Amino acid sequence: MVGTSTKRRIFSRIINSLTKYTCKRHSSTESTESWNLVPRKEVKRFIIECMSSVKTRQDHAEKLADNLSTADYRGHYSHGLNRLDMYVRDIDSGITERDGDPITIKESQATALVDGQNVLGPVVGDYSMQIAIQKAKQTGVGWVAAKGSNHYGIAGWYAMKAVDQGFLGLSFTNTSPLQVPTRARKPTLGTNPLSLAVPAKDKDSFVLDMATTTVALGKIELHDRKQISIPDGWGVDSEGKMCNVAKPVIETGGLMPLGGSEMTGGYKGYGLAMMVEIFCGILAGSDYGPNIRRWKSTERVANLGQCFIAVDPDCFAPGFVDRMSDLMNTCRNLTTAEGEDDTVLVAGDPERRHMNMCDQKGGIPYHPNQIKFGIELAKSLKVEPMKTLTG
Amino acid sequence: MVGTSTKRRIFSRIINSLTKYTCKRHSSTESTESWNLVPRKEVKRFIIECMSSVKTRQDHAEKLADNLSTADYRGHYSHGLNRLDMYVRDIDSGITERDGDPITIKESQATALVDGQNVLGPVVGDYSMQIAIQKAKQTGVGWVAAKGSNHYGIAGWYAMKAVDQGFLGLSFTNTSPLQVPTRARKPTLGTNPLSLAVPAKDKDSFVLDMATTTVALGKIELHDRKQISIPDGWGVDSEGKMCNVAKPVIETGGLMPLGGSEMTGGYKGYGLAMMVEIFCGILAGSDYGPNIRRWKSTERVANLGQCFIAVDPDCFAPGFVDRMSDLMNTCRNLTTAEGEDDTVLVAGDPERRHMNMCDQKGGIPYHPNQIKFGIELAKSLKVEPMKTLTG
Repeated sequence: MVGTSTKRRIFSRIINSLTKYTCKRHSSTESTESWNLVPRKEVKRFIIECMSSVKTRQDHAEKLADNLSTADYRGHYSHGLNRLDMYVRDIDSGITERDGDPITIKESQATALVDGQNVLGPVVGDYSMQIAIQKAKQTGVGWVAAKGSNHYGIAGWYAMKAVDQGFLGLSFTNTSPLQVPTRARKPTLGTNPLSLAVPAKDKDSFVLDMATTTVALGKIELHDRKQISIPDGWGVDSEGKMCNVAKPVIETGGLMPLGGSEMTGGYKGYGLAMMVEIFCGILAGSDYGPNIRRWKSTERVANLGQCFIAVDPDCFAPGFVDRMSDLMNTCRNLTTAEGEDDTVLVAGDPERRHMNMCDQKGGIPYHPNQIKFGIELAKSLKVEPMKTLTG
Repeated sequence: MVGTSTKRRIFSRIINSLTKYTCKRHSSTESTESWNLVPRKEVKRFIIECMSSVKTRQDHAEKLADNLSTADYRGHYSHGLNRLDMYVRDIDSGITERDGDPITIKESQATALVDGQNVLGPVVGDYSMQIAIQKAKQTGVGWVAAKGSNHYGIAGWYAMKAVDQGFLGLSFTNTSPLQVPTRARKPTLGTNPLSLAVPAKDKDSFVLDMATTTVALGKIELHDRKQISIPDGWGVDSEGKMCNVAKPVIETGGLMPLGGSEMTGGYKGYGLAMMVEIFCGILAGSDYGPNIRRWKSTERVANLGQCFIAVDPDCFAPGFVDRMSDLMNTCRNLTTAEGEDDTVLVAGDPERRHMNMCDQKGGIPYHPNQIKFGIELAKSLKVEPMKTLTG
């Protein structure tokens, strides 16, 4: 269904959409002034229709659309529209189920084990997180592990569902091997992201959503394209040696754990990646570690493992959100370092800035290449293209 | 009770005891061949008698002795005998209670809120972890937050208590401000350690026990003493700028979060430190963040916040320990990086090596300065000094 020209564009789109700008942590290189704006509702409409065109069940398509459009709205462009064709392809080829429902196969008062039945990741994750929240309402904590899942988009989407209920939310997923353990030379663990979302006062919130590698692969691909060197701590070559040239890292090497080399604490990032894997594949009984299929390959079902936790702060000391807001605002108001031209942020602030900007503009700004890709995808799927506000 | 000469030696001891050797991550500089051996039982006897001499309740002294001797046995010398005089002083001055019991002030099926009543950290932590384990037995998960606590030694000691029951254990504590958030210039969060301990087959286990800073302060002090530069990512000066000279970091700067600079993912380490603080001070209602008393100061009670979690893997997919052992052994058997002269490890392996070495030698090897300190402490407290096997 999706043509080869589309496939060929995957790499190009990943690169382009990684041109982020909301804060320094996202290599700032480009203004969004000239980008096309698309209202979030229209982005969702487009995603739903694309998914429906390959016969995805309507409510599945809606959940995916909510996850992907949330990613773009929050400024995580790598996980939004940029990945739509992957989900389309997964459904179209049958490697991901277009219909079905996750099932709970084991339960205790505070826990559940879910079999995702190989439907779309956001469907499995939403089902699992709702159970975690229900358990937290009853016992104070809900801890759910899911097997038989697929790529689940941004980790924060699930964790934030708990915040909507006034709860703390955590979400974890294992992913295809890209991370090279400290002292090793071969990618053996995934980027294994984790998210913690926590409510504060006046709808403020803390949203940590991070990979346990120093950076994502796409960031290194971007440096390769620009032919600039990568900093220490990002990647290793095929011999496992830290490398400042992007190409060997991408082609035959791998990502370094958060912390980089052993001297700068990389073994801690490797330990955190193992923690995520323990909560996901090891608890859930899905594929895990190096057994997970390679990134972008679809020779077999993903069978990813994921974990979702909800905690009710009312079970602990009164005044949780007051303390939370105080801590966050204390950090935000800290005197900045010499030479720093922006304020101190807390997790979730860069995304908040991006969402505010979208709200002011009346839509999500997309890079022209992303819009172009959308038009091509629409054509190949015989779906009405996204209506842009400008351009 | 503890003389000023003892106090003057604190810095010196911290430095000496940081001369670790079990693996490369602990700046290897010295052989332990000439060190004095002390059987673990004798270390505990000594700690108990020192604490009893300042009227610490017997069972409190025993818990502290178990925690500190475990630290030394595992090779974490900075958290063992090295800190005994701090606990002696805290009890002797009355800033920590020598008697009393933690109390549970709020409870749900899977959670509890504990008031530590300002007794020794290991007493509060042991009490809290036992509750977490009991809750996990009943509901699958136990999540306990404690306020009114004190320095609790190594985080792993608590997490490993869950492993003894076949459970996953997690432990977190907030600590005095030493960590400078990304973009800031002032220490605002602690080193905020976390531990995850997980059972595997044949008594094997995964034990992650890490600070959320790149390194501990003592490691930077060691470099200062040797007059060698520190790597990028370890510390900042008083202006918040990354610094390769140890002295300004120690005297007027602070520790960098795991990941180092913003470019190499330091904001993730900062986010993880916030996560630990949220689970501890914010959930428990203790002091938190920059409100915690300065490191080594005792002008007011510590009122630290801590968090203890137990999870029963039997509530999830069958075969947990088999998968766990498979993942750990897969990592251990990976081909090592070019130039790497040791094997790939998993969290807990360096400690296992140290314990095996102690078992073979029949005691824990201590640096001569640590033995000397013990003798002086014994003299000032009128306690029988540790009997060493050699020297």
